[in-house]
Amino acid sequence: MSNISYIENLEEWKETFSFYCPIKVRFSETDAFGHLNNTKVFVYFEEARIEYFKSLGLMKDWMTKENDAIIVTADLQCNYIRQLFFDEKIKVYVNANHIGNTSVDIHYMALNESGELCLTGRGSIVQISKQTGKPLPWSEAIIDKMKSNRKKIGV
Amino acid sequence: MSNISYIENLEEWKETFSFYCPIKVRFSETDAFGHLNNTKVFVYFEEARIEYFKSLGLMKDWMTKENDAIIVTADLQCNYIRQLFFDEKIKVYVNANHIGNTSVDIHYMALNESGELCLTGRGSIVQISKQTGKPLPWSEAIIDKMKSNRKKIGV
Amino acid sequence: MSNISYIENLEEWKETFSFYCPIKVRFSETDAFGHLNNTKVFVYFEEARIEYFKSLGLMKDWMTKENDAIIVTADLQCNYIRQLFFDEKIKVYVNANHIGNTSVDIHYMALNESGELCLTGRGSIVQISKQTGKPLPWSEAIIDKMKSNRKKIGV
Amino acid sequence: MSNISYIENLEEWKETFSFYCPIKVRFSETDAFGHLNNTKVFVYFEEARIEYFKSLGLMKDWMTKENDAIIVTADLQCNYIRQLFFDEKIKVYVNANHIGNTSVDIHYMALNESGELCLTGRGSIVQISKQTGKPLPWSEAIIDKMKSNRKKIGV
Repeated sequence: MSNISYIENLEEWKETFSFYCPIKVRFSETDAFGHLNNTKVFVYFEEARIEYFKSLGLMKDWMTKENDAIIVTADLQCNYIRQLFFDEKIKVYVNANHIGNTSVDIHYMALNESGELCLTGRGSIVQISKQTGKPLPWSEAIIDKMKSNRKKIGV
Repeated sequence: MSNISYIENLEEWKETFSFYCPIKVRFSETDAFGHLNNTKVFVYFEEARIEYFKSLGLMKDWMTKENDAIIVTADLQCNYIRQLFFDEKIKVYVNANHIGNTSVDIHYMALNESGELCLTGRGSIVQISKQTGKPLPWSEAIIDKMKSNRKKIGV
Repeated sequence: MSNISYIENLEEWKETFSFYCPIKVRFSETDAFGHLNNTKVFVYFEEARIEYFKSLGLMKDWMTKENDAIIVTADLQCNYIRQLFFDEKIKVYVNANHIGNTSVDIHYMALNESGELCLTGRGSIVQISKQTGKPLPWSEAIIDKMKSNRKKIGV
Repeated sequence: MSNISYIENLEEWKETFSFYCPIKVRFSETDAFGHLNNTKVFVYFEEARIEYFKSLGLMKDWMTKENDAIIVTADLQCNYIRQLFFDEKIKVYVNANHIGNTSVDIHYMALNESGELCLTGRGSIVQISKQTGKPLPWSEAIIDKMKSNRKKIGV
């Protein structure tokens, strides 16, 4: 049980992740309250998400100018569990929690060096056509790749 | 009806706002996809939220070093309805949608110059003690101020 | 006399400016030292520079995809005279201090609400061709526009 | 010979560096011109400078609240030699080019994966007292540390 809407069982949810991106809190990302500014976690989520897509060999196509498909962020959210400070090293875990027809629900989890939960998050990514602006269905190849590195989800 | 979890009825929800902060999209806030980078909307939300708190005379105390009370972000989310581009002028509306004992659920709405809905969002702010790290109940004066500029909520 | 290499006489230099862009220090732009992070002044310079170019009617062409000419930053520098803090309102002055064949030396000056000097800066902007990557000479129309709002320079 | 004021001989200057900080260009650091936004290089310089100070064991004291000494940026500049793009891996070299009584002139050099020069820069850092705001002389221990990892400078 959890009071975060997108997490049913926290321990089971944590087990669904395997891919992570290591990130260190920059000084320029802190604010006058002395901790990581709340807006910067989404920079970490984006970096981790892109590294995740790269690890699946997906990012290259979306960055190619000739390619009609592009990905956009439909929504994004973060729960701040534990404050982060300058120079902390965290692991930002990412996975494809639920894969729809044209979108994917990406989940995020950040742990500090002691393995303590600092951030949880999620957000929907949609594949659209640059020309029409309309959603484009994922190819089966893409779906297979996204499914490949999840440990267990929604079984 | 709306498919955004924190908005029951979109038209009614839009009517709850009165305070807004005008913001212009900076070039340094765009990304290589040619539009506003998804992480920057939370910078706008923070700026609008602070201007809202300032308009209620609340920000000054929280910024005073001697003051024990500080506010922290518990969670934050955004739904991206319409892409934003360099130099667009938007109005970021803010209000205190639900006021708890030690926290407040702030809602956000960004409209472009044509009045079209571009972003919706919400996030919980908690007042805590710098010394103990524990939540601090709002004073009645603060609650009254937050209630003052809402049009109609939770009636 | 001045110990800043690009300013010969500070009082005379200050007199060369007329255009300015009003900017307010955002909370997310402060850092754990409690003041404006040093990297953010260049965000202000860029915003002020773009507003300056817009005021001359120049920005539109450079932002048009079909247009071959684009402007790039060749160098940039800032002298930090006085610390800036959250919520300070500053005026960032901009002018075209020296106009070359394909480049322009833009100068910057930031004053706080008391009119005190907080930042000085300069940087060279070059017009290049997107296709060839080579510098493109300014048209006479552009040179005239840039000269128009300088008060007196180099006479 | 070089047309950059703080570099007398480029090849000799490059040889003065040994310490570097590896950095990868984030997507959120690009802009609508498709490349790294000019303001973000100073984020890299700050990260590299801090890693450099940490490598010398100096950063910890400056980050301690009880410590009266703090470092501030007096000036900062960058020459943009070669555009950088999303996902490029660069090495940002740092050294203490000239050590004054209360300040130090830090130089920066960024190379891409092919070893090509992308950015050069410099900036003066001053040690001041938090209480008085006045410059504080470096201790001999600090001077020795800063001198230690330079290859050869100005002898």
